[in-house]
Amino acid sequence: MADQIKILGIAGSLRKQSYNKGALRAAQKLCPDGATIEVFDPEGIPLFNQDDERSPHQKVVDLKNRIRAADAILLVTPEYNYGMPGVLKNAIDWASRPYGDNAWSGKPVALMSAALSMGGGVRAQYQLRQAFVFLNMDAVVQPEVAIGNAPERFDKDGNLTDETSKKLIGQLLRNLVEKVRLLRPAMKAAA
Amino acid sequence: MADQIKILGIAGSLRKQSYNKGALRAAQKLCPDGATIEVFDPEGIPLFNQDDERSPHQKVVDLKNRIRAADAILLVTPEYNYGMPGVLKNAIDWASRPYGDNAWSGKPVALMSAALSMGGGVRAQYQLRQAFVFLNMDAVVQPEVAIGNAPERFDKDGNLTDETSKKLIGQLLRNLVEKVRLLRPAMKAAA
Amino acid sequence: MADQIKILGIAGSLRKQSYNKGALRAAQKLCPDGATIEVFDPEGIPLFNQDDERSPHQKVVDLKNRIRAADAILLVTPEYNYGMPGVLKNAIDWASRPYGDNAWSGKPVALMSAALSMGGGVRAQYQLRQAFVFLNMDAVVQPEVAIGNAPERFDKDGNLTDETSKKLIGQLLRNLVEKVRLLRPAMKAAA
Amino acid sequence: MADQIKILGIAGSLRKQSYNKGALRAAQKLCPDGATIEVFDPEGIPLFNQDDERSPHQKVVDLKNRIRAADAILLVTPEYNYGMPGVLKNAIDWASRPYGDNAWSGKPVALMSAALSMGGGVRAQYQLRQAFVFLNMDAVVQPEVAIGNAPERFDKDGNLTDETSKKLIGQLLRNLVEKVRLLRPAMKAAA
Repeated sequence: MADQIKILGIAGSLRKQSYNKGALRAAQKLCPDGATIEVFDPEGIPLFNQDDERSPHQKVVDLKNRIRAADAILLVTPEYNYGMPGVLKNAIDWASRPYGDNAWSGKPVALMSAALSMGGGVRAQYQLRQAFVFLNMDAVVQPEVAIGNAPERFDKDGNLTDETSKKLIGQLLRNLVEKVRLLRPAMKAAA
Repeated sequence: MADQIKILGIAGSLRKQSYNKGALRAAQKLCPDGATIEVFDPEGIPLFNQDDERSPHQKVVDLKNRIRAADAILLVTPEYNYGMPGVLKNAIDWASRPYGDNAWSGKPVALMSAALSMGGGVRAQYQLRQAFVFLNMDAVVQPEVAIGNAPERFDKDGNLTDETSKKLIGQLLRNLVEKVRLLRPAMKAAA
Repeated sequence: MADQIKILGIAGSLRKQSYNKGALRAAQKLCPDGATIEVFDPEGIPLFNQDDERSPHQKVVDLKNRIRAADAILLVTPEYNYGMPGVLKNAIDWASRPYGDNAWSGKPVALMSAALSMGGGVRAQYQLRQAFVFLNMDAVVQPEVAIGNAPERFDKDGNLTDETSKKLIGQLLRNLVEKVRLLRPAMKAAA
Repeated sequence: MADQIKILGIAGSLRKQSYNKGALRAAQKLCPDGATIEVFDPEGIPLFNQDDERSPHQKVVDLKNRIRAADAILLVTPEYNYGMPGVLKNAIDWASRPYGDNAWSGKPVALMSAALSMGGGVRAQYQLRQAFVFLNMDAVVQPEVAIGNAPERFDKDGNLTDETSKKLIGQLLRNLVEKVRLLRPAMKAAA
């Protein structure tokens, strides 16, 4: 269908049984009709080096192509040291470069986080929201999906079991899809 | 001398002619008597993966050893996408882990940044300051060394030429050294 | 016209010749066809006291009524001590209370700032953007209108004279009006 | 005693049974030997107006005098709309002005917060820490005293009953007193 909405999901953790990977798998199942979430795994991206930004690693080329092919982005972030992980920021940095070739620009985006702490990762989310101002990404405002006390809300394999969190994720995705639908006329005009 | 103060300096850019590497080289020359700055280059650190945090890459082992051997830390950060680069955050994340083995804890720290923009990278500095609360690092408050309009203040090889910036760096380093001297009794008591 | 868009503009400074008041006056003149900006002056609002939130000062009642009657909000903020002024935050706090009666909820919003510093007040803008997540306000992403070196860009009476800033304000307002038009279906559905 | 340390405590809420006022009262009782906490109540401070900064309200004159007479500051902040309250920021803004007459400069400071939310007000604390960079205030790094779920940790009159929170406050105050003692040589040299 012409109207099918493609969302690219990226979790900012490389750990196999990552809660954030689990939250992203849950989002795939909770995705509303008319939309699908595909996953990009940042494993294998090198550290950003501006000297290489015009001939980047194939993995970075893939990332930028997949961002461009998507209608919207879903970022799922752990919180390390009161901020977003280097792993996620490094992927963001690569795909924003070189100057004038920022693949993120104009993409609607939604945010989720999972963490051991009670706050659930909100500090990482605010850093991402600040980056979106530069990246030119229009973010869903609410609900804030920040899954705290993660060990109580995921099983041992990192699968989300908490029903309240699932409801919030469903609402977040419906709001993201609605944002894509509403903003489309503006995005077509800019293209 | 027992009293010689060792500062470990880390620049958050891998680019060869990086302004931030240049600012760090300038700091080495401007270091007050009784202190020296050694440089750690984050190139070659892998992306953080919590599954590997108990048997990390040799480069991470080296980083943690050098942090522990230092009396103070000097971080020099570019600003990408209104925040600190993934490269620098990734190094911070590794050296803070595993839980209970945070190499940064208790180290006095000073901050500098260089950027193309007028602001000179302050947004990256505030994210670092927020991380310091978790990492337990006592940061020099002033002066804020944020070198904006970098192409006018560095030569083509990335060497700092701006005299005002050099004065500020000198003052920042004197304040860092003083902080180390004043806090030493507390640090010895905690050790 | 049913389609006329009403924007409520608030400047966060009480100074008579405030640059931010001047930027708001400029915005009124630069407002695109089909939209108008009315001004609310926060002078006379008392300090927030939760004990009084159910029977607030008449000035607070007026503020909430005018927010509710508006299709969108334009906030113009100075930067004091690396953040938004208490004057502006105090107005935001009152109009967000009591719990369940947040007048700001659902309003599209745009941001401008003017300051003496080179950065032009962006630190105050990021604090506002963080508040919008709680307040449920969808903010225009770009352009970022942050008018630095204010004394060179305003005349002695606080009138904006800088043509580049005027262009950016015009673009910001067009983007705000477009956001109102695009989001209207969603806002009607929620009402 | 020449060595007695005077701490000025300010709570950012005007509500009579405020949790933050209660946390400040608790701090007074938990203050270590050799130090005392006096309270300044921001009630009655007008909204900041730069036109009046050279002939401010008597309440502002009092605030600046009491800050100057103190060896250290203790700020106790609620969190409204994901940030510090306007009431507290307004007091900070007044006492930092006019330019060149910032009463806060050089004062060691500690932070506490109490809030209904799980996070306990940390978002307000980070905004304060960012202000301290401009204000030139050296803040205690840890522990972070952020008392979440306040209704479970205070009685109906706003008195702190939670033992864990009391222990953290005691530790915070000991760290503040130690910081004052360690930094004194530097502060005397600057005076």
